[in-house]
Amino acid sequence: MLDELERDKPHEECAVFGIFGHKDAVPLTILGLHALQHRGQEACGIISSNGNHFQMKKAIGLVGDNFNKPAIIDQLAGYCAIGHNRYSTTGASDYKNIQPLYADFDFGGAAIAHNGNLVNGLQLRGDLVDNGRIFSSTTDTEVILQLIAMVKGHITDRLKYALSRVKGAFALLCMTKDCLIGVRDSLGIRPLMLGKFNGKYVLSSESVGFDIIGAKFERMVEPGEMVVITESGLQSIQITPKRRARTCLFEYVYFARPDGIIDGINIYQARKQMGRQLAMESRVSADVVVPIPDSGTPSALGFAEESGIGFDLGIIRNHYVGRTFIEPTAAIRHLGVKLKHNANRSVLRNKRVVLVDDSLVRGTTASKIVKMVRDIGAKEVHFRLASPQVLFPDFYGIDMPTKQELLANNYSMKEMIDFLGVDSLEFLSLDGLYRALGEKDGRDKQNPQFTDHYFSGDYPISVVGHDAPKDELSYMQVVA
Amino acid sequence: MLDELERDKPHEECAVFGIFGHKDAVPLTILGLHALQHRGQEACGIISSNGNHFQMKKAIGLVGDNFNKPAIIDQLAGYCAIGHNRYSTTGASDYKNIQPLYADFDFGGAAIAHNGNLVNGLQLRGDLVDNGRIFSSTTDTEVILQLIAMVKGHITDRLKYALSRVKGAFALLCMTKDCLIGVRDSLGIRPLMLGKFNGKYVLSSESVGFDIIGAKFERMVEPGEMVVITESGLQSIQITPKRRARTCLFEYVYFARPDGIIDGINIYQARKQMGRQLAMESRVSADVVVPIPDSGTPSALGFAEESGIGFDLGIIRNHYVGRTFIEPTAAIRHLGVKLKHNANRSVLRNKRVVLVDDSLVRGTTASKIVKMVRDIGAKEVHFRLASPQVLFPDFYGIDMPTKQELLANNYSMKEMIDFLGVDSLEFLSLDGLYRALGEKDGRDKQNPQFTDHYFSGDYPISVVGHDAPKDELSYMQVVA
Amino acid sequence: MLDELERDKPHEECAVFGIFGHKDAVPLTILGLHALQHRGQEACGIISSNGNHFQMKKAIGLVGDNFNKPAIIDQLAGYCAIGHNRYSTTGASDYKNIQPLYADFDFGGAAIAHNGNLVNGLQLRGDLVDNGRIFSSTTDTEVILQLIAMVKGHITDRLKYALSRVKGAFALLCMTKDCLIGVRDSLGIRPLMLGKFNGKYVLSSESVGFDIIGAKFERMVEPGEMVVITESGLQSIQITPKRRARTCLFEYVYFARPDGIIDGINIYQARKQMGRQLAMESRVSADVVVPIPDSGTPSALGFAEESGIGFDLGIIRNHYVGRTFIEPTAAIRHLGVKLKHNANRSVLRNKRVVLVDDSLVRGTTASKIVKMVRDIGAKEVHFRLASPQVLFPDFYGIDMPTKQELLANNYSMKEMIDFLGVDSLEFLSLDGLYRALGEKDGRDKQNPQFTDHYFSGDYPISVVGHDAPKDELSYMQVVA
Amino acid sequence: MLDELERDKPHEECAVFGIFGHKDAVPLTILGLHALQHRGQEACGIISSNGNHFQMKKAIGLVGDNFNKPAIIDQLAGYCAIGHNRYSTTGASDYKNIQPLYADFDFGGAAIAHNGNLVNGLQLRGDLVDNGRIFSSTTDTEVILQLIAMVKGHITDRLKYALSRVKGAFALLCMTKDCLIGVRDSLGIRPLMLGKFNGKYVLSSESVGFDIIGAKFERMVEPGEMVVITESGLQSIQITPKRRARTCLFEYVYFARPDGIIDGINIYQARKQMGRQLAMESRVSADVVVPIPDSGTPSALGFAEESGIGFDLGIIRNHYVGRTFIEPTAAIRHLGVKLKHNANRSVLRNKRVVLVDDSLVRGTTASKIVKMVRDIGAKEVHFRLASPQVLFPDFYGIDMPTKQELLANNYSMKEMIDFLGVDSLEFLSLDGLYRALGEKDGRDKQNPQFTDHYFSGDYPISVVGHDAPKDELSYMQVVA
Repeated sequence: MLDELERDKPHEECAVFGIFGHKDAVPLTILGLHALQHRGQEACGIISSNGNHFQMKKAIGLVGDNFNKPAIIDQLAGYCAIGHNRYSTTGASDYKNIQPLYADFDFGGAAIAHNGNLVNGLQLRGDLVDNGRIFSSTTDTEVILQLIAMVKGHITDRLKYALSRVKGAFALLCMTKDCLIGVRDSLGIRPLMLGKFNGKYVLSSESVGFDIIGAKFERMVEPGEMVVITESGLQSIQITPKRRARTCLFEYVYFARPDGIIDGINIYQARKQMGRQLAMESRVSADVVVPIPDSGTPSALGFAEESGIGFDLGIIRNHYVGRTFIEPTAAIRHLGVKLKHNANRSVLRNKRVVLVDDSLVRGTTASKIVKMVRDIGAKEVHFRLASPQVLFPDFYGIDMPTKQELLANNYSMKEMIDFLGVDSLEFLSLDGLYRALGEKDGRDKQNPQFTDHYFSGDYPISVVGHDAPKDELSYMQVVA
Repeated sequence: MLDELERDKPHEECAVFGIFGHKDAVPLTILGLHALQHRGQEACGIISSNGNHFQMKKAIGLVGDNFNKPAIIDQLAGYCAIGHNRYSTTGASDYKNIQPLYADFDFGGAAIAHNGNLVNGLQLRGDLVDNGRIFSSTTDTEVILQLIAMVKGHITDRLKYALSRVKGAFALLCMTKDCLIGVRDSLGIRPLMLGKFNGKYVLSSESVGFDIIGAKFERMVEPGEMVVITESGLQSIQITPKRRARTCLFEYVYFARPDGIIDGINIYQARKQMGRQLAMESRVSADVVVPIPDSGTPSALGFAEESGIGFDLGIIRNHYVGRTFIEPTAAIRHLGVKLKHNANRSVLRNKRVVLVDDSLVRGTTASKIVKMVRDIGAKEVHFRLASPQVLFPDFYGIDMPTKQELLANNYSMKEMIDFLGVDSLEFLSLDGLYRALGEKDGRDKQNPQFTDHYFSGDYPISVVGHDAPKDELSYMQVVA
Repeated sequence: MLDELERDKPHEECAVFGIFGHKDAVPLTILGLHALQHRGQEACGIISSNGNHFQMKKAIGLVGDNFNKPAIIDQLAGYCAIGHNRYSTTGASDYKNIQPLYADFDFGGAAIAHNGNLVNGLQLRGDLVDNGRIFSSTTDTEVILQLIAMVKGHITDRLKYALSRVKGAFALLCMTKDCLIGVRDSLGIRPLMLGKFNGKYVLSSESVGFDIIGAKFERMVEPGEMVVITESGLQSIQITPKRRARTCLFEYVYFARPDGIIDGINIYQARKQMGRQLAMESRVSADVVVPIPDSGTPSALGFAEESGIGFDLGIIRNHYVGRTFIEPTAAIRHLGVKLKHNANRSVLRNKRVVLVDDSLVRGTTASKIVKMVRDIGAKEVHFRLASPQVLFPDFYGIDMPTKQELLANNYSMKEMIDFLGVDSLEFLSLDGLYRALGEKDGRDKQNPQFTDHYFSGDYPISVVGHDAPKDELSYMQVVA
Repeated sequence: MLDELERDKPHEECAVFGIFGHKDAVPLTILGLHALQHRGQEACGIISSNGNHFQMKKAIGLVGDNFNKPAIIDQLAGYCAIGHNRYSTTGASDYKNIQPLYADFDFGGAAIAHNGNLVNGLQLRGDLVDNGRIFSSTTDTEVILQLIAMVKGHITDRLKYALSRVKGAFALLCMTKDCLIGVRDSLGIRPLMLGKFNGKYVLSSESVGFDIIGAKFERMVEPGEMVVITESGLQSIQITPKRRARTCLFEYVYFARPDGIIDGINIYQARKQMGRQLAMESRVSADVVVPIPDSGTPSALGFAEESGIGFDLGIIRNHYVGRTFIEPTAAIRHLGVKLKHNANRSVLRNKRVVLVDDSLVRGTTASKIVKMVRDIGAKEVHFRLASPQVLFPDFYGIDMPTKQELLANNYSMKEMIDFLGVDSLEFLSLDGLYRALGEKDGRDKQNPQFTDHYFSGDYPISVVGHDAPKDELSYMQVVA
């Protein structure tokens, strides 16, 4: 029930966080991962090091539920640490896929954590298996680890080789006994940024990872840049040509926490602006603007400001929802959506409601929320989405439904209006979205500023063959 | 760290939920308790019955984490069930105090769950112990159970006797093999309401317990009313004189979920009105109204509407905070407040900020949030509280600091301004609060409509002697 | 499967251990309970005290699996402690019945642990419930606790009063903030003994509890004696007339560990002597004497010595059997007995085997073992039991089958031989058993030295009414 | 404390069990592993298959504690399964090393479990790592898995290649989607045998694995033989030259369960014969022969029979000892040995005692037992070991102390007598041991029948370089 709710939104698969050379590296990494929890709640892991040796802890569930004991901090103690949050669809059996991954090499150990997806990961894995490599996970991360093992030399050279073989989007951290490395893919699709805490370098998927510990944001890791942090400081190696970042639009639309900044763009203000732009593009006569919380709230505020219609909390969210919940009996199965949302009668009754959300993917939860809003007595429901129709699947690390499950790919506007049961339905235009993000002329078709294939069909990295579902990569299932 | 954050707010100690005569009684009770989770997150319990026998499950933690397996629903199976959420300060060792409580009597078994506090509980317990009664918990609930055991006759007569001995505030559920009873204290301080689901009666602390299962709200249980639900229907017994409910003001100010109604008053609209009233009473020249989420949001919206100052989310809350978190090392201990809240720079920087919260009790978290807001670059911080100064302790079931810890009780306005580090500080007047709740003339001093001693010192039930801390009631500690 | 195996033997329900005034009271009690683990493996508990306050830990399972962490010892820390091992038939749901029990009184707290059974426990409980007492367990121990609560005065006077009301067999420990009390029932049916460790008094069900910690056995607690241990030393109070102990015969036959001494009789030598006596009474022509391990081993050794037939380990026991095991599919259900025992082919094949066990109760496991011995190739199987036929049920604390399930009560010798599939079957005579225990003239019918009703029908304490199954005492079941 | 006790004996590292083509493959494997539990108690694992897919469950602890739920059997359901018991010194952190191991190959999945040790495992691992292979465990088993991955072709050819590269002792099982393979090392050092259950083939380390399920022992797997079991039956491939098995002597002396047969030799009768031979070689005038249970019991029986001195249980063993136990405070640390053994006063007091054990390795536990026997009042203690002095370390899979810790390697007979505190000390001669195993002329120096390097220094497989401790193979430690 909950799964359906959660999976009705696209999901980023990961967050990474790392720090080098601080005696509190482990508690700081725990806090950093906690601040990045919104990017993945299924599993988390930390690997730390104190020079030669490494300690690892992985767990199913939230950071705050698994890394909350002083004894764990003591056992992990190290001056260098990297951590990872993971969203996953397959549950406890996936224990083997929790990151960071680790391997012993001739030069010592190395740990890797990454956020993103390789479009040629399956092909590379096949080649490696054909050449006698044994995999112990089904992650792309292990493909990179295996490639690192195939060449000799310093870890930076090995990593350069490995990354020259892979194609895809990633923000990657690698830790050895004497360095912490961060790399961002050549287009900068996934975010990765550099901060400083008490003079020590920190790497994080989002700036909120710095905020929680009081670290100072320094700068974005650039597309194709490898930053190598050692005791002697930071070295920057540009492994692919310099270019402006073409960040994934969904970071601004949905993934990133509103209180952050990615590639110079303030997320909260961008989302409010998307709401304002949406109001400009799709005027409506109504009594109240109501966000679907929490993701629709900033754009609903912007919509309300621009439209002059009052903003009110017409839907209340229950935040005490764990990862799993009861599978209710048949008699009460339809109640599912209410585990998380409840209609606020006094705001909605007899009102013409503008319902605002950030995006529409499958539409199943949205249709239930609309029904709940109608049942409580709303007179009209006008649904506004602060992003364009999602028409194309993603292959760069977003856990999004297949093409067949994308509502906008299968239904006409008229059919969507019927399916959702709304009085009107409008999406922000792609040009409008670009404008909200500061591109005054909208999307530059020749050289678009962002990665936007799910809206435009314009894939910046060509996908190699058919990317098989990862759960078919192994014939083996771990029983909990 | 978290404890400090949480405990800086007053805490209601419980929620109750019960249903009689439905084959899905257990899953419905689970859902009801989930909707009432905000009233207590430390522990939860359900007792069900199928005529003669009873099944009980109690757990430390959230409903959704402990009652989420089909096997548990199967084991608890019954057509009648009552459940309880509990807030507690003492952790796992308190397992023995998780409600509902159960006892075997000559007529069979009975289970009791209650929300509230008895002001003569300690005295009664002392008398009972002197008379050779053995207690297995330190709860008031067991006092009621012992009193029930002392007389003969039908459970309704026994319960009437027991309640004639106790003084205090309570919403109480009692389940035997053939009936479900709900009672509300003579003043109606704690809420309890009656609903119907598929023709079966349901009892809940708040209406959101009905919403989640699609039950229909019927009416409040009246002050001093005992509703007895059996197979033949509902019988109402007025055990103390009829009167209008004098509900606890803090239900409206903070405890209840905004999407509910108590004694005819819509919580969300009331809170917005408190914000409006507050704006009228304490005008300020500023750039932005920022709520301390989530409790300050409705009143901040009202404040913004009334004052004409824009509303914005200047503080972002991280909802992935479990019950416990790391005890950070000394070096990072001051980061605590950021586990839950982060300042949203783009909203606050160089702004004159009106910070709105529902109430101020200890002030320690507030002072940290103000510091965070200032550190991010706010030019001015004007703190507005949508309720009066909390000057007096509570004895009717709110877990509130002692008088010595109440900020307003110890500090002058000037001192509070210094302590909090704000540019100005204003509280809603008590009359203003009454007005926001529909009393046009403010508080009627002779016959006030609500229970408001924490603001006024006017205790509707006199406290008997000194109410000793409950953890001193037993010499024994259970080791987990 | 395993349950069947285990329950085919009678079971003592408990062991008790206590120590007063030693800084290592808790680890010493853990060790003592470990040495007494054979008397009960289902659950264990310890309550400790450091003057005014008490700490309690209870657990399902073995002492060594639950009290094995330094942190637990630290949390329980006290200079006085009592502990209890419990055998139980009902599993995790019985958590509430794990001893020791605790209650707060006007004089402070008191903890009680006891081994045995009250024949009027049910009646007393009924009276107490009728008088408004609430029970939180279904144990006899709580009856004693309730009786203690009913009178005033010093704990010794209260306990004297309580014990004057109860009838039955018991070895009881009671701990308050300033004393440790041990009492043995008026006939001395259940054993309890006094030892000294580093000058401090220790109480234990068996002497092996002293051996493990290196304590010195001082003497048995006498029938009807209450020993009160305080800082000023030991005081002995005779609460019923002095008499020679009439110890339960099954302690010598089966319950007690062979390396102990009870009421002056060495268990191992007594069992060997039972085997010798059995050989004298029932000569047989055979090739090898084989014990059913471990309980049949000492008497088999005695039988072999007396008969001159060689002793050999024809059945090997697998000790790695936990409390529960798989419920095999239908296809392999009959394999159950082999979880614990395997036939040793080289010893049994083509041999005339004398199989020796201590006692025969239900006979179901025995029949499976005989079949296993025959299947492996034994030519003849002569079954010899080192105790008489069990014909009557027990009411003094042994967990034994009902009369209907006792093989010897329902079958003639001829029928038993057929049921078991043996070539011959002989039991030690009751006179022979007495002789093995040093009564040269056998059993004195007027004044028998031991409690032996299961063999003789001679109940030393008359049973009051019908003793209902304890699991019917409560209408409530705890769901794990 | 316990660790010391346990580790004072040599330890076999593993047991393997497998079955092909039976619908109850998983419960049968659980039972088989349970019967083989004595060969390893630290961890256990099972991998099952139903044609194409595989399921795996691994756990720290005993089979009976971890594979005892019907749900687990359901989840693992398959018609083919292999399982493994493991002894290990390093605890929970070793989770990654629990067998069976699994890998995906181009032909599908394969699982491997093995008992034994490779003397060139470290060297091979080093070569593989140099060639870019990543290891996810530190086991020899993974070396074999990596070698299988390096070549193409059918699994039997791959396995032949892999085994042609390794040197050492092993009994190995390998399962793919359509076959179960068993291989025994070229000398047959570790045992592996073939049985049949309901027409289906079963493989087990010992015959007791067959006994528990009622399978019929067929024959030993021969040295250097690979048996390949498929739907079409069994195929035998001799991968190294045929020869008579040179089984590890310690299987007969200590490891194997007494109720089994290895390479035609009955373990129980062999041990009794060792005791008889020992009595012939070292006559002594004494009152009683006492075994150190359980391992010394059969040889003590043989010693008693041959010497004519009576056999008695002078030491009683407590079997309720879990894997870990308390770390007692300093005051009671010396009590450790009594967790497992207690002296039986009536047997030992004032007696001249012959104490018999199977072997002597470190001697620390033996010295404590001797002290306990003396303290209880034994007049003389004559210690007899039913095997020769252990002078040399093992490299073929026995977890034995280093040379420095072997008592006999460091002490003269005179010094050992002093260290142990005995009146006399005698070991069975190596020739005597061979005679007890049926070699009438004792050990054939040219062509010894058994692997006996720990006694003789005669290593049948030369050790390559220095075999580094396995825990140094990885720089990484998993935190539980």
